[in-house]
Amino acid sequence: MSDTNEAPSAAQDYPADLMDKLVSLCKRRGFIFQSSEIYGGVGAVYDYGPLGVELKQNVRASWWEEMVHRRDDVEGVDAGILMHPDVWVASGHVEGFTDPLVECRNCHRRFREDLLESDQCPSCGMKEQFTEARQFNLMFKTFMGAVEDSTSVVYLRPETAQGIFVNFRNVLDSSRQKIPFGIAQVGKAFRNEITPGNFTFRTREFEQMEMQFFVEPGTDEEWFETWRDRRVAWVKSLGIREDRLRLHPHGPDELAHYAKDAVDLEYLLPFGWKEFEGIHNRTDFDLTAHQEKSGKKLEYVEAHSGKRFVPYVIETSIGLDRLVLVLLANAYHEEEVEGESRVVLRLHPKLAPIKAAVFPLVKKDGMPEIAREIEEDLRRSSMTVFYDESGSIGRRYRRQDEAGTPFCITVDGQTVEDGTVTVRDRDTLEQVRVPTSELRAHLRERLAGAGS
Amino acid sequence: MSDTNEAPSAAQDYPADLMDKLVSLCKRRGFIFQSSEIYGGVGAVYDYGPLGVELKQNVRASWWEEMVHRRDDVEGVDAGILMHPDVWVASGHVEGFTDPLVECRNCHRRFREDLLESDQCPSCGMKEQFTEARQFNLMFKTFMGAVEDSTSVVYLRPETAQGIFVNFRNVLDSSRQKIPFGIAQVGKAFRNEITPGNFTFRTREFEQMEMQFFVEPGTDEEWFETWRDRRVAWVKSLGIREDRLRLHPHGPDELAHYAKDAVDLEYLLPFGWKEFEGIHNRTDFDLTAHQEKSGKKLEYVEAHSGKRFVPYVIETSIGLDRLVLVLLANAYHEEEVEGESRVVLRLHPKLAPIKAAVFPLVKKDGMPEIAREIEEDLRRSSMTVFYDESGSIGRRYRRQDEAGTPFCITVDGQTVEDGTVTVRDRDTLEQVRVPTSELRAHLRERLAGAGS
Repeated sequence: MSDTNEAPSAAQDYPADLMDKLVSLCKRRGFIFQSSEIYGGVGAVYDYGPLGVELKQNVRASWWEEMVHRRDDVEGVDAGILMHPDVWVASGHVEGFTDPLVECRNCHRRFREDLLESDQCPSCGMKEQFTEARQFNLMFKTFMGAVEDSTSVVYLRPETAQGIFVNFRNVLDSSRQKIPFGIAQVGKAFRNEITPGNFTFRTREFEQMEMQFFVEPGTDEEWFETWRDRRVAWVKSLGIREDRLRLHPHGPDELAHYAKDAVDLEYLLPFGWKEFEGIHNRTDFDLTAHQEKSGKKLEYVEAHSGKRFVPYVIETSIGLDRLVLVLLANAYHEEEVEGESRVVLRLHPKLAPIKAAVFPLVKKDGMPEIAREIEEDLRRSSMTVFYDESGSIGRRYRRQDEAGTPFCITVDGQTVEDGTVTVRDRDTLEQVRVPTSELRAHLRERLAGAGS
Repeated sequence: MSDTNEAPSAAQDYPADLMDKLVSLCKRRGFIFQSSEIYGGVGAVYDYGPLGVELKQNVRASWWEEMVHRRDDVEGVDAGILMHPDVWVASGHVEGFTDPLVECRNCHRRFREDLLESDQCPSCGMKEQFTEARQFNLMFKTFMGAVEDSTSVVYLRPETAQGIFVNFRNVLDSSRQKIPFGIAQVGKAFRNEITPGNFTFRTREFEQMEMQFFVEPGTDEEWFETWRDRRVAWVKSLGIREDRLRLHPHGPDELAHYAKDAVDLEYLLPFGWKEFEGIHNRTDFDLTAHQEKSGKKLEYVEAHSGKRFVPYVIETSIGLDRLVLVLLANAYHEEEVEGESRVVLRLHPKLAPIKAAVFPLVKKDGMPEIAREIEEDLRRSSMTVFYDESGSIGRRYRRQDEAGTPFCITVDGQTVEDGTVTVRDRDTLEQVRVPTSELRAHLRERLAGAGS
């Protein structure tokens, strides 16, 4: 994935210092923590907290539903992170997945040559002290088995795609699919980035959601367009602002060595237009490479015609952590309501970590007991809920606004009398009274109506 | 996790060669493949295929629902696989997570000394040629950053638990929980096992589902019993045979150095009674160790009394891949039906990868079109479905029996006339006719009635 270093355009209307605010909110509300924070952190790895793990899972589930469950032509797999080392020889990663590194002779720090802006060391300030560049492989390597030498080296996969290519034949044989069909996977990948940064945007450990769609050569250009359009439609269905979304088709100079065509989906983050998803026409590069290296046939034989070919691959590849960051930046709003300022995460209700919060207005008159009953009832219906009885009602609303909770339910004096509660909408702030007995159905309907 | 090497008891009533049959079925039907199989595999790593990924995800979702969503006292996290190396110093893994290894001086193969049954090499047959044992650390190590030396070593986590302990304070502060409360996590862990084996039972890359419950010292023994009972109840709710399930409390000699009490949940697999889940009283061992190593306070301060203490931890820890293997062995049946033998996976319907298969009886008279409509309608309701029109109806039933699909829906001549279809039950083989318009509700009800 490539970064453009353009300055943010005028279309950007983020609050000042949004990234600092987002990092702070993510920690304070339990979305994202620095990994091993009590030990000072570990370079560019992040942990997801109680709200983050739910948000991430909702995005994952929404993608899987769209890409696998709703389709009859896509199968799922979940391949290992550790793979046979020849996989990465065949894919070209052992030879070519490198960055050019230079070292400052004065302070001995190392830098990516292609990102240096002057001949002066960014760390110690000395001029013209860089060594010649050497190629640094971005794959993390480890040793498998009881002996630690070159024969036991294995790599942490730098992309999930190869786990799909090496399983092509097994999936084809076991699933009874016919070309065209796809294989989808969600999983971790690892890259020993020399210059990670921008919070969770560029990290050394990250999660990908990929789908490789196998097609007959000659139909690949059409399928590329089909999948590009489907992916854009899905991203929009998550509520992503269209004025911050753009397509960036790769020019001939930008294309990866395996790609015939590629387009990035970019979002205008506070630090510029950034890619979070790519759609690529990988041709038959990978299957052909694995066929040659492994000696196993990876051809497809068309049943009715007997025609044989190595399929072309249209790939859709999302960085899940990037998409989550995009969704957080997209959702973050500061506004004045009821004479106070509030921070609100306008997350799509289907992605919100907590669907409903339940409050007793005061801690007496039987209100906590009724609120607890409502909480329990919603929980049993598989809804994520949060009970809160501490602080003023306004403060409790603000806490849920920051968490992105679409609905707040308050048990008040009238509830004790007539069995109705108020349901407050996070975005419109409208409150409606709903009988407790109809609450579950009311919320289900409004959550579904939000387009989930 | 420890293996007992007892011979299978008389209670076992597995078909002959079950493990071979299971491995074969898993590959044939797309549950589990050897990783990087086209390259001859990579030691003790497995990939989940189209059906396996759904089964695994259903188990994961069922556990998360039980442990997090239905409870108000457990929060989720998702921590990195790469953590600060001091985490593993504090936890004791750098020093003590080792196996004693000996090498045969004749053939140079290495073995775990504690598993050798005689002084004769199991590989070349030479006697008394073993070297002295040396301690071999089971953590996979790698290097982070541009320099590859001892200062850049990081490990692939050998257990998920430490990702919870180092996040204890961040979760406590962001979630507003009070002791007692728990933190749950599902994720990959890695162990460089010298003698992996028994298919997916002991692998080098595996997935854990863990929950650490933080309690006040003195209440730990009661909480240990509570969680043991809850865990047993959940395992039974998945349909696990009680005559193949037993509790194995650890004697004083078996307890890990950090444990005050421990009990294993064991299942009688074809290769003996094996642990797939453990419940452990870890005391304050981990939090105290991290507090000392990091210099960060990991005490809990009780709000109303001001009392301070380092919480004790009751841990419930499942090997997800092991549980999946247990569920497959538990579900596998060979039987005679309708004069033919069949293999059927009696998976709990809530865990079954495919909930319903849809067949046109013949490929004419409009039946495929109606079957496709039904398939599409069920798919839109978020049900996993499979359409099959090839081969005799009996053969199609057999395929779904092997996949564990609870319901098969057949569109036949009568459907064209009166709009009803047959719904066949995988286990009882009973067929009932249901109007197409009521099919969705009919299936939902029967899936829920199965105790999901």
